[in-house]
Amino acid sequence: MKDRNYIPKATVERLPLYYRCLDRISSYENTDVVSSKELGGKLGIPSTQVRKDLSYYGEFGRRGVGYEVDGLKKSIGKILGVNKVWSAVLVGAGNLGRALVNYEGFNKMGLKITKVLDADLVKIGNKIGNITVNSMKELNSIVENNNITIGIVAVPAGAAQEVSEKMVAAGIKSIWNFAPTRLLVPEEVLVRNEDLAVGIASLIYHLSWNQENN
Amino acid sequence: MKDRNYIPKATVERLPLYYRCLDRISSYENTDVVSSKELGGKLGIPSTQVRKDLSYYGEFGRRGVGYEVDGLKKSIGKILGVNKVWSAVLVGAGNLGRALVNYEGFNKMGLKITKVLDADLVKIGNKIGNITVNSMKELNSIVENNNITIGIVAVPAGAAQEVSEKMVAAGIKSIWNFAPTRLLVPEEVLVRNEDLAVGIASLIYHLSWNQENN
Repeated sequence: MKDRNYIPKATVERLPLYYRCLDRISSYENTDVVSSKELGGKLGIPSTQVRKDLSYYGEFGRRGVGYEVDGLKKSIGKILGVNKVWSAVLVGAGNLGRALVNYEGFNKMGLKITKVLDADLVKIGNKIGNITVNSMKELNSIVENNNITIGIVAVPAGAAQEVSEKMVAAGIKSIWNFAPTRLLVPEEVLVRNEDLAVGIASLIYHLSWNQENN
Repeated sequence: MKDRNYIPKATVERLPLYYRCLDRISSYENTDVVSSKELGGKLGIPSTQVRKDLSYYGEFGRRGVGYEVDGLKKSIGKILGVNKVWSAVLVGAGNLGRALVNYEGFNKMGLKITKVLDADLVKIGNKIGNITVNSMKELNSIVENNNITIGIVAVPAGAAQEVSEKMVAAGIKSIWNFAPTRLLVPEEVLVRNEDLAVGIASLIYHLSWNQENN
């Protein structure tokens, strides 16, 4: 395997797509083997790119035969780390928090949202799916007692920095941030920003450009 | 300005961050000028990167002085296209759809979700904020009569391809897809995938790697 630091970010972001696609093939299609062309075709990714992406991590297929569906799924799952279960605490029991708890497909990626916290007394005690909303004051004990490794920030921008600092103080080392703001956290803390305002601005950037030039 | 095709994707994705940061400085701070160091500091981006990103689009600052806050905000807004209002129809009146309609910060990026549709009879007629949920059957007339340019897919994976095809048939040219699946659409249709399962898998990939190697 190549040094992970030299693997392109775009390749890393495609691995979950391959993984999910293989999972669907395994569940719904009557085949044990898939070619890079078939796999790429389902995802809109050229077969050369599929082969290149996978080659960073080893030799998986057989030339002229293809990839063994379950074997490749298992290998990619292991590379991604989604073959284990990672427990998360979500802070922010609003619409977004509710949507995330109920979002299909996280389980398959190894994420289990086990606790939901909020600072708002009105929301504490409410149920989201099977989860009862706890008070923010319980963050430290919840992280300690529930083997929590991931903190999910689903609060408004104005509260996000404070929430992230509390998460870090409670021992959380990786944060999935949905608030439309950047978090300033210690360097050793892993942050993934799922900044939806950036998403739409980026779409509008291309859309606006297309409109002006067509 | 450089040919847009040669501007790195990472630069494009940072523009909305600069824009939003300048907007906050303009609203909350008593200053007319900001340096690349100050701007970068608020976002955790090195000042050299800030200057490089902006240099793709022109000469904005004055050496030793900095950038004029409102002027730079306006220029970036124009580059992004977020200085106009882009009307969107959202399909899928579930938790995620509700969260998106209520998400703060889309307005500032030029997005206006004007209509919400669902195929589920139980949801049609419900209110999300000020918006009444309409039937999927009204998609064509709604797109035609409301100057809709963006379609937002907030339905489960199994329904997403069909919904995107209906959007394309109704004349929508840009799709913001939240369903955990890739959409196969004609080449001229712009798709931005906001694939949350990819987000978490990517976080877990790095987290899992850190755990194994520390």
